[in-house]
Amino acid sequence: MPFLRISVPAGKGAEFKKTVGDAVHDAMVASIHVPADDRFQVLSEHRPEELLYDRGYLGVDRSDACVFIHVTMKRGRTPDQKKAFYAAIARNLHDRAGLRKQDVMVILSENEVIDWSFGNGEAQLAGT
Amino acid sequence: MPFLRISVPAGKGAEFKKTVGDAVHDAMVASIHVPADDRFQVLSEHRPEELLYDRGYLGVDRSDACVFIHVTMKRGRTPDQKKAFYAAIARNLHDRAGLRKQDVMVILSENEVIDWSFGNGEAQLAGT
Amino acid sequence: MPFLRISVPAGKGAEFKKTVGDAVHDAMVASIHVPADDRFQVLSEHRPEELLYDRGYLGVDRSDACVFIHVTMKRGRTPDQKKAFYAAIARNLHDRAGLRKQDVMVILSENEVIDWSFGNGEAQLAGT
Repeated sequence: MPFLRISVPAGKGAEFKKTVGDAVHDAMVASIHVPADDRFQVLSEHRPEELLYDRGYLGVDRSDACVFIHVTMKRGRTPDQKKAFYAAIARNLHDRAGLRKQDVMVILSENEVIDWSFGNGEAQLAGT
Repeated sequence: MPFLRISVPAGKGAEFKKTVGDAVHDAMVASIHVPADDRFQVLSEHRPEELLYDRGYLGVDRSDACVFIHVTMKRGRTPDQKKAFYAAIARNLHDRAGLRKQDVMVILSENEVIDWSFGNGEAQLAGT
Repeated sequence: MPFLRISVPAGKGAEFKKTVGDAVHDAMVASIHVPADDRFQVLSEHRPEELLYDRGYLGVDRSDACVFIHVTMKRGRTPDQKKAFYAAIARNLHDRAGLRKQDVMVILSENEVIDWSFGNGEAQLAGT
């Protein structure tokens, strides 16, 4: 049930985007118990003048290759689960997509089970 | 006051996007009492490698034509209103844009009336 | 720690986008005490059929040049701070990017400090 918007620098190719999506999804499955088939990701490419961010905020040394991962999911994960999730995303993106861990930013937004329709016009998680 | 981000597959043309936007807006007006002139939609196109989702999660048989509708609106709609909203969106997109109902995913995120400025630098819903 | 998605009409050029980002960020620093180096903005361009909005809702006279600024930030700003923020954004975009104040829409979504990872796979605001 997480829904992800992933923003990446333009020009890295289709395979890069697919690899980023896979790495993030697998991190989610491993760290916060998302079912393997519960995957909904929308990626977008952005030119340099469309990714405007500080290179050093909070002491993190960012490069031009930053990716932004905005996750919407139902409320309830614990702080420890969220920390494990962040660690897993950065590790997977480093190991599989060649990203520096400093270049992985994650933002979470929570909602409720009634706030999801997975198709057919139904609220599957809340009953019908 | 809803603000919508609608993500659709690339290459379907301008008319398709306009039709999708109209169908979703009319569903909103009919099912959750949004004023007819309270419309704010941002659409974006995505190539196949930018729309990464499972074809069968929760038993819904999705095709390559899935659309993702992320709605931000003020808190307060009831579960029954949200269910009616999901049903109306899927029905309208089927009837008017030729989409399969299985290919319509909706995600809601709620905020407060103070969280909106509709122009002029004012918080219209909260007084000024 | 705010994360911004800024949607603008297509075709205005790289300099316009940079100016919009700068103007919005400076408004944030001046009005709600965001550190100057706490900047994370993703911009996207949209063709006319991708920006579907009413030209007169709530009595605001919008043109074809509307921009949409969706801010995700941690919970806690007061209503007065949010109002000052809206006013500052509209003023800055008018003065520096040539936008009409009527064409500036802002939407806020709040989350918690644990919901942010600024890189390295850590939850910097919540401790590690």
